[in-house]
Amino acid sequence: MKIELIGIDGLPEIAPGADLGDVIVSRITAMGHSLSSSDVLVVTQKIVSKAEGRIVPLSSVEPSPFAALWAKTHHLDARLVELALRESRRIVRMDRGVLITETHHGFVCANAGVDVSNVSGGQTATLLPIDADASARALRAAIAARTGAEMAVVISDTFGRPWREGLVNIALGTAGIEPLHSFVGSTDPHGFSLQATVQAVADEVAAAAGLVSSKLSRTPVVLIKGLTYQRGMGTGRDLLRAPERDLFR
Amino acid sequence: MKIELIGIDGLPEIAPGADLGDVIVSRITAMGHSLSSSDVLVVTQKIVSKAEGRIVPLSSVEPSPFAALWAKTHHLDARLVELALRESRRIVRMDRGVLITETHHGFVCANAGVDVSNVSGGQTATLLPIDADASARALRAAIAARTGAEMAVVISDTFGRPWREGLVNIALGTAGIEPLHSFVGSTDPHGFSLQATVQAVADEVAAAAGLVSSKLSRTPVVLIKGLTYQRGMGTGRDLLRAPERDLFR
Repeated sequence: MKIELIGIDGLPEIAPGADLGDVIVSRITAMGHSLSSSDVLVVTQKIVSKAEGRIVPLSSVEPSPFAALWAKTHHLDARLVELALRESRRIVRMDRGVLITETHHGFVCANAGVDVSNVSGGQTATLLPIDADASARALRAAIAARTGAEMAVVISDTFGRPWREGLVNIALGTAGIEPLHSFVGSTDPHGFSLQATVQAVADEVAAAAGLVSSKLSRTPVVLIKGLTYQRGMGTGRDLLRAPERDLFR
Repeated sequence: MKIELIGIDGLPEIAPGADLGDVIVSRITAMGHSLSSSDVLVVTQKIVSKAEGRIVPLSSVEPSPFAALWAKTHHLDARLVELALRESRRIVRMDRGVLITETHHGFVCANAGVDVSNVSGGQTATLLPIDADASARALRAAIAARTGAEMAVVISDTFGRPWREGLVNIALGTAGIEPLHSFVGSTDPHGFSLQATVQAVADEVAAAAGLVSSKLSRTPVVLIKGLTYQRGMGTGRDLLRAPERDLFR
């Protein structure tokens, strides 16, 4: 098997209301790449949030006393702390200036995914899409309408994780791809039954794309060709471990 | 940027003492691929452990009373539980039949990485390499000696993680690549300073390779071409979060 990861750079600045499907297809076409139903398109959350207007001017944010105290203690921007709290339903860890929360969607990440990098001047914040699966489905439909190619779409973001250093890209939302590939009941090449192997394919897709779309490269879209994947209706939320199944809660 | 992930399949069964560098180079050459110092080679732990003789016949394992009780309660093979305990320095979680431990190396994973899949008949277990960084360095040196190509080598394994469903490939050991790429002090395209962004590049490399070398595909080696990476002396152990920095301990 041979897989290609193609970085799509040179996109224009994405403003609220932008037709992201049109922008991406135009750029891919201009770069001379074809689009096929067997492709996977990975799009970083930031440009999806921008297109969906999930942008907040920091000057409009009034921090609560709780946010203000935490920010003052740890030399943080209280407005960003406030936004992170608003985007959260539960605080998972709050220590040494690090705020890890569970977002309203159920994602566990630093600062509820609120980010100021890559936004003009650092004076606005982006929030995660309200429903990244819906974002992925809409983008998939828009691309199919323009090109006829019904490819998989993954919306990615950069998350930290327990136990291990550094950030990796993960799948926030998916469309047209089963995010989990189960080998339960399969037998491996030696005839040994694989009891409990479930591969998080969508997260591996996002991580692979992360190699191309690093923070500094202005490459928010990666086109993946040659990957054999299971088509399906699974969502990025399928990747969230249910609390009753999570040994770490 | 365009990255290629090339699956290297058709390797012979790897026996203890096998010259892994020779086997891999021979197969890559036979498949008609070139090797370059800019490549990254990702090798799954299983064949490294086999070549290093990290294989235990289950018939030789005498379970302790503790291992036997846990196995009996949860309908597990007591010999595998025993091996997992021997490979561990600390039990992280032990609940509902799931045993998550910290290995002697410091990896946090299920069953201390002890595995029976893909080993003949299911009657032997593989253990993690004693020092996967040393394994990676030795393999890198062997390949360079044969081909002149001083490529990066990553030894990968499949781990679960808190919060999220499914397994992803991560980097156990590395050679010739900085596993963490720090953007601290960099500025993004908008001039905004990236305060604390450290990308776990080696884990993303392993995850990308995981798309090619899934459990059923008999593709234990993936050759990556076109990736721009930082050369360096960093190790897979750099990816282990120090206890005093880990909010989840």
